[in-house]
Parts: sequence; structure tokens; C-alpha cells
Amino acid sequence: MNLILLGPADVDADGHATLRDGRAAHVRTVLRAVAGDTIRIGLVDGPAGTGTITSIDAGAVRLLCKFEAAPMARPRIDLLLALPRPKVMNRLWAQLAAIGVGRIILTNAARVERPYFDTHVLDPAHYRPLLIDGLQQARDTWVPQVSIHRQFRILVEDDLDTIEGDTIRLVADPAASTPLADVVRDDGSERRLLVAIGPEGGWNAFELELLTAHGFTPIGMGARTLRSDTACIALLALAHAARARRL
Amino acid sequence: MNLILLGPADVDADGHATLRDGRAAHVRTVLRAVAGDTIRIGLVDGPAGTGTITSIDAGAVRLLCKFEAAPMARPRIDLLLALPRPKVMNRLWAQLAAIGVGRIILTNAARVERPYFDTHVLDPAHYRPLLIDGLQQARDTWVPQVSIHRQFRILVEDDLDTIEGDTIRLVADPAASTPLADVVRDDGSERRLLVAIGPEGGWNAFELELLTAHGFTPIGMGARTLRSDTACIALLALAHAARARRL
Repeated sequence: MNLILLGPADVDADGHATLRDGRAAHVRTVLRAVAGDTIRIGLVDGPAGTGTITSIDAGAVRLLCKFEAAPMARPRIDLLLALPRPKVMNRLWAQLAAIGVGRIILTNAARVERPYFDTHVLDPAHYRPLLIDGLQQARDTWVPQVSIHRQFRILVEDDLDTIEGDTIRLVADPAASTPLADVVRDDGSERRLLVAIGPEGGWNAFELELLTAHGFTPIGMGARTLRSDTACIALLALAHAARARRL
Repeated sequence: MNLILLGPADVDADGHATLRDGRAAHVRTVLRAVAGDTIRIGLVDGPAGTGTITSIDAGAVRLLCKFEAAPMARPRIDLLLALPRPKVMNRLWAQLAAIGVGRIILTNAARVERPYFDTHVLDPAHYRPLLIDGLQQARDTWVPQVSIHRQFRILVEDDLDTIEGDTIRLVADPAASTPLADVVRDDGSERRLLVAIGPEGGWNAFELELLTAHGFTPIGMGARTLRSDTACIALLALAHAARARRL
């Protein structure tokens, strides 16, 4: 944890927080903080800040919190992902939050197996702590907004404009050769990026056509076919670099 | 598996191969191939090609192999990685082979815990099948060359020039702001890239100085601190894009 995330309920009106859970253990045994030390904190979906330790023992860590005036910037990249198998999705939650996405839109597709939707891995009670872990690793406060869509066509035709509004839309396509960076550079705008990644077997022709008909530009990442999770991290790294003009 | 990798021992003098292991099961149950079908194959550290199925049953898959004249190109990116904890390293093998590295140089560092070296995860008998899995996913034939170094200083001062020769050397550094793409572009050469990634707690000052004294340019990836495995995939994606001029 490079930042301890606090929820609104953790902080009282005077700016004091008392931690008794895994965060307290982390402060004690990993950060090895003592009373008087200052540690990096953040408020979920809000500002970062610092916490000065007023008391610390095996039972609790007490902090005096001071938050910055402005909230952190929300990541300007969103992900549309055909639901991978539960084991892979489970590994992805923290990594996606760490690399930085504003929104995670999970969808069905022809090559997604139906049972993938019936898993505790998609239960907010399961994935939210994983997202928080990723944010604490990356020093962010914005919990990605997650939505799950069992009907790909309805998502793309009806719901996406409402969910995403005006974004640069990209779809990873093994047959495409245009690099992500070129599309972003040619677009020239500062709009958010929405990156779509298909299932292990790829989008089928209908799905790819529906996406391109709805504004998604096919982009290529070279000849190598990557597993869903590797492809997500690789493509989001390229998207962040393009958005930060680090390319 | 998007390509079935064969070893030299799998193929007889007439170009016939008989598969009886997991590869045969994959051809039968996932590819659902029948006699007469042609599937993508590759020879370990050699060329790609096609295999025509001459017979297939529950016991064995027999192929007539035809390889391309030239071997595949070896990935032009290498990785120097402070050994992560075994669970993370275990997950990385296939992903590193899939995203494409010529060489994986694992090293000790002040913030690497000694027991990390005493694990079956670093046994070639354990990791080689994982590397092969990654190559079969990505349709590559080049097995990354792996070396393990318990003395960071001896590696950097004495061994690295022999192992790596003339490469562009980069080290990920949270304090740096220069993007990888800028260094590669400014260098202008077509030399291989060697990317160094530190342990979870980062390189210490001595290690970072030793690396920069030996030609490593610090590069930044933005404000987010990533876990070793996420950082590897993100940085290797950027390195590949830079090397392929896809930035």
C-alpha cells in the first residue's frame, strides 16, 4: 500500500480516523510507523492527503487527516472488456485499478461462455476490496465504476452513448495495423479514451462490425496474440502513454 | 494455443510428428481438427510452419510438418527484473514469453527477500513449460533465455556486458519523467532494448546509481506505482511499440 484509502465513514467531523482492520496492520507492520509519523492517505473518490499518527497500538491506529483541497483527477481511460473466465477476471481487478481506468464495462460476446457470469468474482462485495487494493498500490482514490452487460448488442446500440458519452472509441483487432497512438494523435482532442478488448477467441464478425459501426476504430498491437489479461494491461499502458503524450 | 510448438525430438527425418500429450488433446478438443486439416505449428527456437493432420484419434495426432525457410525473428526486447515473490514470478513466465522478450535476467537486490530464490518457480523444469505456453499463445517460437543472478553488483559491473552486449539500457524509476519512447527515439539506433524493473519496494540509491553508471537511462511511466508484474507488462508493451515505431 503506497496510500491508505479511507471511506467517508472512517473520518469523523474533526478529521480523525481510527483504523482497526488490515490497514492498521499494514501501518504497524509494513510501514512500521510510530506516533508522530505522517503517512499518505486518500479519501475514496476524493482527494489525497496526509495522516499524522496520533496513537498506535495493537488494537488501533489513530490518525489526524488532512486532505488536499481538490480531488484527484479521474483516470481518462475506460475499458470495455468481453468477460474473461473468472480466474483471469479475478486477477484483473486490482491490476486494472492500479493501471488506472475510470470505468470497467464488462460484456457478453459470442465467444464468452455463459457460466462466466455466474461467479462470485462479479459480486461487488468480492471485487471492490480488490479494486481498493489496486488503488492503494497506485496511489489513486478513484474506484473504477463497474457495469456488467449480458447483451452485447443492446450495450453497443443503446446503452453505450449514455454510459460513455463523447469518447474516442478504439477496439483491439488482430487484423488491424493502425497503432493506438496514431488514432489518438490524429484525433487531436482531449476526449476520454474507451478501449475495447474481445474474448479469448476474439470478437466475431458481427460484433466487430457493430463496434466499428458505432464509432470504434480498429487498432493493432502487432502479430502477437495475447491473453485477455495481458492484452488489457498492455493496451491500457499504451492508452495512458498516448493520453499523457508520453509517446 | 494459437500455434503448436514442436521440439526437434518431435519431428522425424521425413517431417512427420506424432503428438500424444496435452498438445494432442488441444488439437482434438479445442481446435477440433480432423484428418486433412492444416494447423499452425512452430519449431522451438526455429521457424514457424504448418502441420497437415494425417491421422487423429484418442491416442495420438500425426502431422506432416512443413516449416518456413527462415526462423522467426527473436524479440528485440530484453528484461532485467529484480526477482519478485514466487507467486508473482510464477504468473509472469507465460505472460513474458507471450508479450515477447529475448532474455529474462533475474537479479537479487537489497529489497528482494532471500527466500525468493529458493523456490521451484525458478526451476527450469517448472518454468520452461510456462514459457512454452506463452509462446504458443503469442505464436512465437523463441524461448526466452533465462539467467538468475544472486549478486546484483557482479551482474551489473562484470556480467552484463557479456550477456547483453550493445543494447539501449533503460531503468524504470518512479522519480524519472522521461518517457521510454523519447529515449528510444533520441537514440535513433536499431539496437536491442534492455528494460530494468526493480523490486516491489524499488531499487535503493546505490543500485540506481550503479545502473545509471553502467548506461541505464531512468525512464518514468507517470505517477502510478505498479506491482512488479503489472509494471513488466506495461513497460514491455511500451518498449515493443517504441521498437516497432508504433508510438
